[in-house]
Amino acid sequence: MQDALLALTRYWTERGCVVVQPYNTEVGAGTLNPATVLRVLGPEPWRVSYVEPSVRPDDARYGENPNRLQTHTQFQVILKPDPGDPQELYLGSLEALGIDVRAHDVRFVEDNWASPALGAWGLGWEVWLDGLEITQFTYFQQAGGMSLDPVSVEVTYGIERIMMALQGVDHFKDIAYAPGISYGEAFGQAEYEMSRYYLDDADVEANKRLFEEYASEARRMLDARLPVPAHNYVLKCSHTFNVLDARGAISTTERARAFGRMRGLAREVAQLWAARREELGHPLGIAEAPAAATLPTTFAEVGEPSTALFEIGTEELPPAEVTRTVEAVGKAVADKLGATRLAHGAVEVHGTPRRIVVLVPDVAPREPDAEKTVRGPRVSAAFDADGNPTKAVQGFARGQGVDVAALGRVTENGVEHVALVRTDPGRGAVEVLSGLLGEVVSELRAEKNMKWNDPKLSFTRPIRWLLALLGGTPVPVAVSTLAAEPKTRVHRTAATPVVEVSTADGYLEFLAGHGIDASAERRRAAIVERAEELAASVGGVVDFDGVLDEVTNLVERPTPILGSFEERYLELPAQILTTVMRKHQRYLPVRAADGSLLPHFVAVANGEVDVDLVRAGNEAVLRARYEDAAFFWRADLRTPLADMKAGLEKLTFADKLGSMADRAGRIAALAGRLADVVGAADDTLARAGELAKFDLGSQMVIELSSLAGVMAREYAERAGETPEVARALWEMELPRSAGDALPSSTPGALLSLADRFDLLAGLFGIGANPTGSSDPFGLRRAALGAVSVLRAFPGLKGITLTRALSLAAQEVGAQGLDVSADALDAAREFAVRRYEQQLLDAGHDHRFVNAVLPLADAPAVADTTLTELTELAGNPDFAALVAALQRVRRIVPADTAGDYDPQALVEPAEVALHKAVADVPAGVTGLAAFAAAASGLTTPVNTFFDEVLVMAEDADVRRARLGLLAAIRDLAAPVLDWQALGTALG
Amino acid sequence: MQDALLALTRYWTERGCVVVQPYNTEVGAGTLNPATVLRVLGPEPWRVSYVEPSVRPDDARYGENPNRLQTHTQFQVILKPDPGDPQELYLGSLEALGIDVRAHDVRFVEDNWASPALGAWGLGWEVWLDGLEITQFTYFQQAGGMSLDPVSVEVTYGIERIMMALQGVDHFKDIAYAPGISYGEAFGQAEYEMSRYYLDDADVEANKRLFEEYASEARRMLDARLPVPAHNYVLKCSHTFNVLDARGAISTTERARAFGRMRGLAREVAQLWAARREELGHPLGIAEAPAAATLPTTFAEVGEPSTALFEIGTEELPPAEVTRTVEAVGKAVADKLGATRLAHGAVEVHGTPRRIVVLVPDVAPREPDAEKTVRGPRVSAAFDADGNPTKAVQGFARGQGVDVAALGRVTENGVEHVALVRTDPGRGAVEVLSGLLGEVVSELRAEKNMKWNDPKLSFTRPIRWLLALLGGTPVPVAVSTLAAEPKTRVHRTAATPVVEVSTADGYLEFLAGHGIDASAERRRAAIVERAEELAASVGGVVDFDGVLDEVTNLVERPTPILGSFEERYLELPAQILTTVMRKHQRYLPVRAADGSLLPHFVAVANGEVDVDLVRAGNEAVLRARYEDAAFFWRADLRTPLADMKAGLEKLTFADKLGSMADRAGRIAALAGRLADVVGAADDTLARAGELAKFDLGSQMVIELSSLAGVMAREYAERAGETPEVARALWEMELPRSAGDALPSSTPGALLSLADRFDLLAGLFGIGANPTGSSDPFGLRRAALGAVSVLRAFPGLKGITLTRALSLAAQEVGAQGLDVSADALDAAREFAVRRYEQQLLDAGHDHRFVNAVLPLADAPAVADTTLTELTELAGNPDFAALVAALQRVRRIVPADTAGDYDPQALVEPAEVALHKAVADVPAGVTGLAAFAAAASGLTTPVNTFFDEVLVMAEDADVRRARLGLLAAIRDLAAPVLDWQALGTALG
Repeated sequence: MQDALLALTRYWTERGCVVVQPYNTEVGAGTLNPATVLRVLGPEPWRVSYVEPSVRPDDARYGENPNRLQTHTQFQVILKPDPGDPQELYLGSLEALGIDVRAHDVRFVEDNWASPALGAWGLGWEVWLDGLEITQFTYFQQAGGMSLDPVSVEVTYGIERIMMALQGVDHFKDIAYAPGISYGEAFGQAEYEMSRYYLDDADVEANKRLFEEYASEARRMLDARLPVPAHNYVLKCSHTFNVLDARGAISTTERARAFGRMRGLAREVAQLWAARREELGHPLGIAEAPAAATLPTTFAEVGEPSTALFEIGTEELPPAEVTRTVEAVGKAVADKLGATRLAHGAVEVHGTPRRIVVLVPDVAPREPDAEKTVRGPRVSAAFDADGNPTKAVQGFARGQGVDVAALGRVTENGVEHVALVRTDPGRGAVEVLSGLLGEVVSELRAEKNMKWNDPKLSFTRPIRWLLALLGGTPVPVAVSTLAAEPKTRVHRTAATPVVEVSTADGYLEFLAGHGIDASAERRRAAIVERAEELAASVGGVVDFDGVLDEVTNLVERPTPILGSFEERYLELPAQILTTVMRKHQRYLPVRAADGSLLPHFVAVANGEVDVDLVRAGNEAVLRARYEDAAFFWRADLRTPLADMKAGLEKLTFADKLGSMADRAGRIAALAGRLADVVGAADDTLARAGELAKFDLGSQMVIELSSLAGVMAREYAERAGETPEVARALWEMELPRSAGDALPSSTPGALLSLADRFDLLAGLFGIGANPTGSSDPFGLRRAALGAVSVLRAFPGLKGITLTRALSLAAQEVGAQGLDVSADALDAAREFAVRRYEQQLLDAGHDHRFVNAVLPLADAPAVADTTLTELTELAGNPDFAALVAALQRVRRIVPADTAGDYDPQALVEPAEVALHKAVADVPAGVTGLAAFAAAASGLTTPVNTFFDEVLVMAEDADVRRARLGLLAAIRDLAAPVLDWQALGTALG
Repeated sequence: MQDALLALTRYWTERGCVVVQPYNTEVGAGTLNPATVLRVLGPEPWRVSYVEPSVRPDDARYGENPNRLQTHTQFQVILKPDPGDPQELYLGSLEALGIDVRAHDVRFVEDNWASPALGAWGLGWEVWLDGLEITQFTYFQQAGGMSLDPVSVEVTYGIERIMMALQGVDHFKDIAYAPGISYGEAFGQAEYEMSRYYLDDADVEANKRLFEEYASEARRMLDARLPVPAHNYVLKCSHTFNVLDARGAISTTERARAFGRMRGLAREVAQLWAARREELGHPLGIAEAPAAATLPTTFAEVGEPSTALFEIGTEELPPAEVTRTVEAVGKAVADKLGATRLAHGAVEVHGTPRRIVVLVPDVAPREPDAEKTVRGPRVSAAFDADGNPTKAVQGFARGQGVDVAALGRVTENGVEHVALVRTDPGRGAVEVLSGLLGEVVSELRAEKNMKWNDPKLSFTRPIRWLLALLGGTPVPVAVSTLAAEPKTRVHRTAATPVVEVSTADGYLEFLAGHGIDASAERRRAAIVERAEELAASVGGVVDFDGVLDEVTNLVERPTPILGSFEERYLELPAQILTTVMRKHQRYLPVRAADGSLLPHFVAVANGEVDVDLVRAGNEAVLRARYEDAAFFWRADLRTPLADMKAGLEKLTFADKLGSMADRAGRIAALAGRLADVVGAADDTLARAGELAKFDLGSQMVIELSSLAGVMAREYAERAGETPEVARALWEMELPRSAGDALPSSTPGALLSLADRFDLLAGLFGIGANPTGSSDPFGLRRAALGAVSVLRAFPGLKGITLTRALSLAAQEVGAQGLDVSADALDAAREFAVRRYEQQLLDAGHDHRFVNAVLPLADAPAVADTTLTELTELAGNPDFAALVAALQRVRRIVPADTAGDYDPQALVEPAEVALHKAVADVPAGVTGLAAFAAAASGLTTPVNTFFDEVLVMAEDADVRRARLGLLAAIRDLAAPVLDWQALGTALG
């Protein structure tokens, strides 16, 4: 291992990197070393590499977990500015480590990085070696809240993982650290003891005091304009926070507060550092950007219709962006071609992670010339009586640069004008393409964009080359620093990674000959076909759910590989196994005919690899992950549910809101009270309430928090709980995100609601409202979830937002925290806003949405109304009723009561209206029923307005008429918000 | 520079060292990294190398000082166990750095290392490269208070210094750190900012709180048996302490307390670590010691008298040990040879730093045989009347294994016995030498001894080889793991560093031929001769004071080299220049005929070197040191004395004893009061008192604290103070150590006394008494100094210890601290004990010393008495007087008063005695005077005892007789302690 570190140091030193030492205060990552986090700021160039033992108290496992260490070894490289070929340099470093990048499957898999505590983010990848994440590769975009210019490339190697893979060992302790000394022998004791400190023995109060001391020294140093010591203290804050966190001593609110504080300090450190460097005159100089590319002044001409080829070469795009970019480029090219006069065939676009290929067949050699008529003065004003040109026409001719004699005539709107007919000469196809293809590139944008060493371009990942040909003729394209060349880049591991391209014709086959399938459809089909073959060879079928699209766009040519794992892992719940396969590894599960999992998977490698080597690597990765999971699984199964539940006492939830056990208690109580509201209390709910959240105390969920609920169900079933209780515990966690499944059982729904209303009431109660983009407690998700459940369970409509929040507040209150009425109002309003947004996002007319919002306290009711309203919207009778009701609403003053003396009504129209009102049956609820019941009002209302003067001189009459109309208003009022609806239907 | 670090890493890795990372909390030295300080404990082998950025807040200089950095880079190597040739390995590493060790003067100069805070010490060297200290090389003997077995070799390179020398730059900022990046560019800003933090901006109270938090976490972790996190927190304590110290916020007592606390924690950490490793079964195994050497069973014989040669080869001995070992070995060889029957010439011993050479000419080939007579029974009992052997003689003969007939006769004390005359055959010389030379080696001891990889030997430095020849015959010698071979080691840089030796004859010439002068006299003479030549070449003479003996024993062959420095440094006081030359560099100053310094020096290199290269190196070192000094000198000269004095306010002295300014104020006041006691007050004393200690506020003394007093004199003179005031300020600091010069002026003596009595009264007053071996405040030195000054100034004898301490306590009291009477008694007793020890160390008879101790409150008085007592001791009259007085003292009960009624005396003898007593003149002081005056008592006393019965039956008579004797006792009592004196003289 030490040789590996030396080899990397040597490799990067030879590439101009300064070597610095690990930082001498605990850091969680090499990024935090000032050699990265401060040096990436400002315009000075900087290339550095160093080892960084990275301390993650949260990863402490007493040295027992094969892959997790409280201190792991990072090797960190910063290249500032981006050298233009950092991936190639990186691959060279793997070779320096003795990794045969041709035999292995080395992949750049989308992974963006953000550190809220540092105000920093970047886009990049995790690098996979046969499925094992060995490196984080990031284009650093922002640090300390400052945009970076130039951008730095950050490469962070996870040394222990690389060593385990290279040495083929299953536990970090078995890594040969030095000749004759294993990693465990060298560092095992420290790993155990520091784990003890972080997990069990650190003094919480002392560490809290340390945090304060550090933060205040950082503050003082900022005030003294000393960013270096200030940064030191920010790092000490951060480490101390991590210690407290690992000890389970940080509540959600404390976390948010601490993060806010550290982020604020980090931003100031960054700004101060940048300012100080500027004051010092940037001692290391100013980084230079690459020179801009230029276009020739003349363009080649082609003689006959040809195929245009345009390739935009990129570093590995995120899979979703491949698809999106193919569409965007196709549209852009078609639109831009459409805006020219160049004849061409249908635009065809393909994409892989590294290239977007545009092919346009039959592009004409030139645009045809076009005629263009410029209108001059009227003929009558152009020539005097003698037929001599007037000053007006002479001026026009001069303006157009022609002689008066060259002017012709046109007739417009029956008036004859002098006119000049100009010929707009068509441009050559090369020139046309040159311009529009350049625009396509410079206008490229993705959902999230980044900068690299190009001063002007911005895209999801760096664009590194352009290839443009018209038939065999190179099309010059110059975009910022990029110039098209008749070359493409094939697999980086190819013998010749850059190859000349002589013609656009047959380019897809040309690429295929170099091992690249540009067509996603073809790749996808190949994966399906080969994966099915492989699965069949072990008597199974492939479960393509979820990851097929992704893996299609993770490779340029798929090489599906069948891997296996030990059958004993099948004892684990399938959801754990598939979660790990899909989410972590992008493997395709293999199932038996009955749907049960087989101990196999299909991994999709890129291009030609040593299949056995890559299989073995992927199997090892999966084994390690499953071994972890199995360890927790078995440990958890040995633990009574009550013991796991007791563990919640130790998990701080939030300031003033107690522990997670307190919260679980509130949820159970609240679920019971909500059940009482709708008469749904039963044993299932009661028992599930008792167990609520117990799996948060399981080792599995502590490790893989996304399995909360899933594990509750599994463990509850295995502990002998009824299937209904197990299901309720699982459904309690639903929905976990927008679009996720909802509970399907009433107990599950009630627990889900109780969970979410407890969160809302509690956190609004302590003033932890979401602000702007900051929602650290996931209150948006909670509110959306609650609303979704209420909408899905019309039977629970008795549970209004107001009622539920009020009950939740009572439960919180029972534990000692008063939630103010204002806080509850704010929580309710917040939930209503989420509901509103849901409706709008679903495409409902915003006026309809507004019209039903007053009913949103019971979203299911509002939903019904909205459905009815949408259905009724096209109905002329309903439109007439609405119009009539709006006439009524407009004339009646708001303070007019809806009662009247029928005796005072005398005119036939008003008597008729009175009668019609009286005929509307009482107790109608719902819009559709109301519309039906009130349909008889339309005509009498209209007749009333036609024939009766509401504002009669006689006060009694006037009062009665207004009362009559107010009665109609009041009849309609509970149904929806008529004012918001307006007269859209009228 | 980074290449140098990589080169060292590679070099040591190839030699089996594990590479670890710098520690991730601030450490003051690589030693503190657990990879050293914990791994050296216990029996496990361990070889490690690493870089350690070492943080020394005290060395912070804002990046301005060319050689001092708050963070400097150490490269640390631990070899455990000692590989047997660590120096050779080390020299190889210098070659790996590109240093031509043949051309340069690389030297191992005695430097022992101890870290009280770590409970650690070791013996070793600083390694000099042309006079520049580039490495600390230590055989680690103890850590955490535990003796190390096996011993580790610790090599610590000072990388910046090595780089400055290799790159020939004058300021650390100019070091080329990486291609195109200087050290200053890479780290200059951090150096400045961290200096700001450490010197100016660190929050003192916050850091004090941090210290407490860290110490208490360390304590808790020890209790939890987790040495690793405990050690982390000890390191954090240590760094925080250093920060506080650099901020000037640590008082002497706080320092002592913090050190005690850290030492205690460090010891516990060490013990716990060792215990834990044992519990873990010593995961890295157990280091093996080299095999023991063995002797042959038979020894060669030589045919004729030959020269014996014995060489003990060592690593570089401390210069003083060379001389001492030559003497010890000479005596041991002579004594041991003397105890044999082997004829031999005079034993001749020579020594260099690397060898002790014993030559014994004319060693006989064998011991002569010796006859030995065994006495048997008396002849009368051996034969019966018939002349037949009795059973007795038969038994004797049988016991001796001979026939009765073989027995002879001897006469002893006139009685004839049978006897057996046996022949004890002489041993061969080789056998004799083999045994005794082995003993010489195993019995070698120095003042301070160490262990290395030999399990049994112990000496000041490792013994690495033995050479023993008798003429041309190898003498086998086996001592522990060492076996003599007919080889020696010459200069390590020689083409053949190990050479065969075929004969003892002419060995000194043989060595000379290999560039080694074994004779110290010859080396010394060579230095003197060549140095004088060199000095003469620049018109000067060499000042050999002080370092000649040392340099003689720092080399095996001296190569004096004349170096120069810029004349402008001669503006500095000569004492600064010579202090730096001698103490720091062991250079010989060169003076003009008038004694003034010339800008030259003579450095003494070892063996053949590239003289120009070595000269340039030494000149650069001296230039850097002088540049530093000149910087401070000029800055100080610009500063008024009052400003420097004002600086004392900021220097905390000790808890409850205020700042250094408070202490200076007390000293001035106390000196004045002491002067009043003896009527010695004058203007000089008053002015010097005002300025007392002002130079502690000068930059020069802050940097070079050994110049305290020296700089006071220099700066005071240049500021226009009188020469007397300047002298008093200098003398105030005297004596600085045992044997140092004493003040020669009365004001100087009074200030010196005041300084020391203030220290004693104050620190005893706060209970900071020295205990056992711990005397952190130097109170022993202070007490010895005070006593020495009082002894040297009999004119000040009015100043008794009691009086001085009482006045000092009053001054301390005036600043608010009450010093208890018990504390003053303890301080006085402590001073008396120091005086007693001084007298005993000077060789005085312990009874005489005890006899004068009651007078020690005025040491000058006690001195006089002791002198007189010593002179009188041989005088029979005095002895008789003493005997008489002791008779008197023995018979008189202690409570008998010394008055009596002369009328009650009637016997002639008692009347005569009464008369003799009355004749002794009153008011005699001093022993000699008393002895003369009382000499008339001897005879009457003796007569009295012969003729008179003291215990007369008549009570009045008895009372008078006892009273008469008591009067004699009382007369003698004030002169000295007669009881302690005893009857030694009688």
